[in-house]
Amino acid sequence: MNDSLILRQNNRPHRVVIIGGGFAGLKAARALRKAPVEVVLIDKRNFHLFQPLLYQVATGSLSPANISAPLRSILSHQKNCRCIMGNVTGFDPDNKMVIMDGGQIYYDSLIVAAGASHSYFGHNEWEEAAPGLKTIEDATEIRARIYSAFEFAERESDPADTAEWLNFVIVGAGPTGVELAGAVAEIARNSLKHDFRRISSTHAKIYLVEAGPKVLGMYTDDLSESALKQLQKIGVIVRLNTMVTDITRSYVTLKHDGQEDRMPTRTVLWAAGVQASPLGRLLAEKTGAKVDRPGLVEVAADCSIPGYPDIFVIGDMARYLHDEKLKPLPGVAPVAVQQGTFVAKVITSRIQKKSPPTFKYKDYGKMATIGRAAAVADLGKNLKFSGFLAWMMWLFIHMMEIVSFRNRLLVLLQWGWHYLSYDRAARLITGDDTHTPLPKTQVAHSEAAPTPQPSTVVSR
Amino acid sequence: MNDSLILRQNNRPHRVVIIGGGFAGLKAARALRKAPVEVVLIDKRNFHLFQPLLYQVATGSLSPANISAPLRSILSHQKNCRCIMGNVTGFDPDNKMVIMDGGQIYYDSLIVAAGASHSYFGHNEWEEAAPGLKTIEDATEIRARIYSAFEFAERESDPADTAEWLNFVIVGAGPTGVELAGAVAEIARNSLKHDFRRISSTHAKIYLVEAGPKVLGMYTDDLSESALKQLQKIGVIVRLNTMVTDITRSYVTLKHDGQEDRMPTRTVLWAAGVQASPLGRLLAEKTGAKVDRPGLVEVAADCSIPGYPDIFVIGDMARYLHDEKLKPLPGVAPVAVQQGTFVAKVITSRIQKKSPPTFKYKDYGKMATIGRAAAVADLGKNLKFSGFLAWMMWLFIHMMEIVSFRNRLLVLLQWGWHYLSYDRAARLITGDDTHTPLPKTQVAHSEAAPTPQPSTVVSR
Repeated sequence: MNDSLILRQNNRPHRVVIIGGGFAGLKAARALRKAPVEVVLIDKRNFHLFQPLLYQVATGSLSPANISAPLRSILSHQKNCRCIMGNVTGFDPDNKMVIMDGGQIYYDSLIVAAGASHSYFGHNEWEEAAPGLKTIEDATEIRARIYSAFEFAERESDPADTAEWLNFVIVGAGPTGVELAGAVAEIARNSLKHDFRRISSTHAKIYLVEAGPKVLGMYTDDLSESALKQLQKIGVIVRLNTMVTDITRSYVTLKHDGQEDRMPTRTVLWAAGVQASPLGRLLAEKTGAKVDRPGLVEVAADCSIPGYPDIFVIGDMARYLHDEKLKPLPGVAPVAVQQGTFVAKVITSRIQKKSPPTFKYKDYGKMATIGRAAAVADLGKNLKFSGFLAWMMWLFIHMMEIVSFRNRLLVLLQWGWHYLSYDRAARLITGDDTHTPLPKTQVAHSEAAPTPQPSTVVSR
Repeated sequence: MNDSLILRQNNRPHRVVIIGGGFAGLKAARALRKAPVEVVLIDKRNFHLFQPLLYQVATGSLSPANISAPLRSILSHQKNCRCIMGNVTGFDPDNKMVIMDGGQIYYDSLIVAAGASHSYFGHNEWEEAAPGLKTIEDATEIRARIYSAFEFAERESDPADTAEWLNFVIVGAGPTGVELAGAVAEIARNSLKHDFRRISSTHAKIYLVEAGPKVLGMYTDDLSESALKQLQKIGVIVRLNTMVTDITRSYVTLKHDGQEDRMPTRTVLWAAGVQASPLGRLLAEKTGAKVDRPGLVEVAADCSIPGYPDIFVIGDMARYLHDEKLKPLPGVAPVAVQQGTFVAKVITSRIQKKSPPTFKYKDYGKMATIGRAAAVADLGKNLKFSGFLAWMMWLFIHMMEIVSFRNRLLVLLQWGWHYLSYDRAARLITGDDTHTPLPKTQVAHSEAAPTPQPSTVVSR
């Protein structure tokens, strides 16, 4: 029994259930704060994650909490909104129910915004060897692998093994891949420069592998070209038109011009492919909605599912084809945010018996960062920037978008510090280390053993 | 083959191997920076952890990186020091070798400072149900349990289950237990006050259970009394002279005056007992050194092991009985730091054929914090403080002790923020959730199911 519910039993307000507290879901919830509805926001996690900066956690310049904000504290003063932390396991559209682990919840309107993750193109066995970057746990795992690689390189005595530890392969030259490659290059060339005694971190080789003909495929050729140059300038080795055909913990197999060769490496990071939340297919099964190969749900012009006007799918999960210029709409934050605001308006206008709005995506352009003072920005028409100016724009815009003033302050402070000192103070190797194999040999340590051994003699 | 070693082969310097990068080991390494020695610092982790503030990570006011500093960056400019990340698995004192996972390393002098952890007094089966606070992983696990408990309480529909989730039991009223209890009380009463809709976080009950007759047992009676009052003032229920006889994921059994009773709770935090690193016993087996029940190694007046003048044990691992006032010396940071400096002097003076110094512990007193504006400080003689003044002293001293200016700045900023807003922005529920059981029931969610059910009718 719950008082707040008993009180409402006679005139229960329209209940909007939102699945996912990302850009789309959170925006929808906020946009409904003045609406005559009861909002229930369901998320697996208790926080909203600012995805665009996740790679900075994965590379040790920011802490997880700096780019996260507890959903409850964001929404604590929105009295018509309730948060539930839990997993959605299915849908019952005919009874207007969302099925959760151990319970179910009724909705009048449903907004599904569970996002997307990376796809291994049917090679899920690669995941263990080549983690992707989507969650906080992914980020701390990748962080541990990057920094452990240098630690183990320092421990190896065989130069060949050292070299393997110092090979880094990033798969996929989209924004995330480019950001990761740039950051790892900077770690090797700057952050760790003075930290090792036996190896030199600057000998690390960072490979960015892309199946397509250019980096940042969705950008104009001149900006891609500029991004490529900026990557090469900071020491990233870019391999275009190159497929990955196999990945293990000790090598990757690359295919270029039909010719395969094996590159020994202990650190592979996955930044390719997209795959919608499995909730997309679950929903499609029940509603007959169309899903494409990556599992995105095809939606109507008002973001609802054909035949189910009370069910909306928005953000990275949705395949929106009703835009004359961009079809389908890209899986980026601005689309998610605008769709979130839009469906909130649709629901409100229905309740108020007003004519519904129509969705029009406003494209403000796109930008990607490459590294220190390196970025590209395409603001449409003739507004194209690269290098320092684009980077400053990137910094500013991302700064302002971070939820909570406190985090903006902390991020600004740490960026300033990082810019001046090259230091990456959040480079903790944490979590279970079961994924990280030990160095093959550590005779390096017995080099000074008093009992005469070949490996001994060296240092005595 | 390693050049740096080949170059040194003819006049190899005296090698000091240090195990552990905590207060004791790190201090010893720093104190040897000008000595004519080669320092090798071995640690399982790649960072130095500022233990005294770990409870603030466990309660969501600081991020792990704020209280950690990468060992390599602390030591990056100390050219005579090399860091190795790895596990020590044994000792070979006769050949002066430290055995590591997959390798071994020779030492001329050995400093063992691997620290201590909590002890379950033979009930290791309690660990899963009642995690202790020693590592970053412990802290994020405890953080997840505390905040998950409120999340699950919100999901329960049965008031009895809700109450179970809102019972928090902290075992052990030493400094850590007192800090944790105070922080959890503040979370419930302030940080989460506006965040929930069905429950009120202020209804949470925080129990601090202590087997002894007072809190902060090592303090004077008046300060313990004051700490008790301050705890009660912020709503902590203190149970003295109370033993814990059983712990599961759903209850603890408490014994008071020979009478046992069961308290239902889903969140138990362990802050009792001390247990030295297992390396203590391993070392004792090889050297015949004495170890006490918790595994602390009894050391000579110069912190060496009787019969092995080149092996030193310092910090929480050492049992030092040669102090006339305090015997044995307590397992606190100041002892560790002073012993680290001392053994560095001993080693240097031996190399320089000077007469060795003698160790004299300088006791500057002790302080413990209880919560916002609540603490106790005992600076010896008549210098005893409690409440706000003690708290300010505690804040200041801990601020200044944190390694790296950057972290001092970040911590100061977040403390200031936290003090003004009561907000705890680092309250992320991360990591695998296998430890956290689901709410028993979630009919709360089907309260609005259209199919008539008792639980349904309520809200329609």
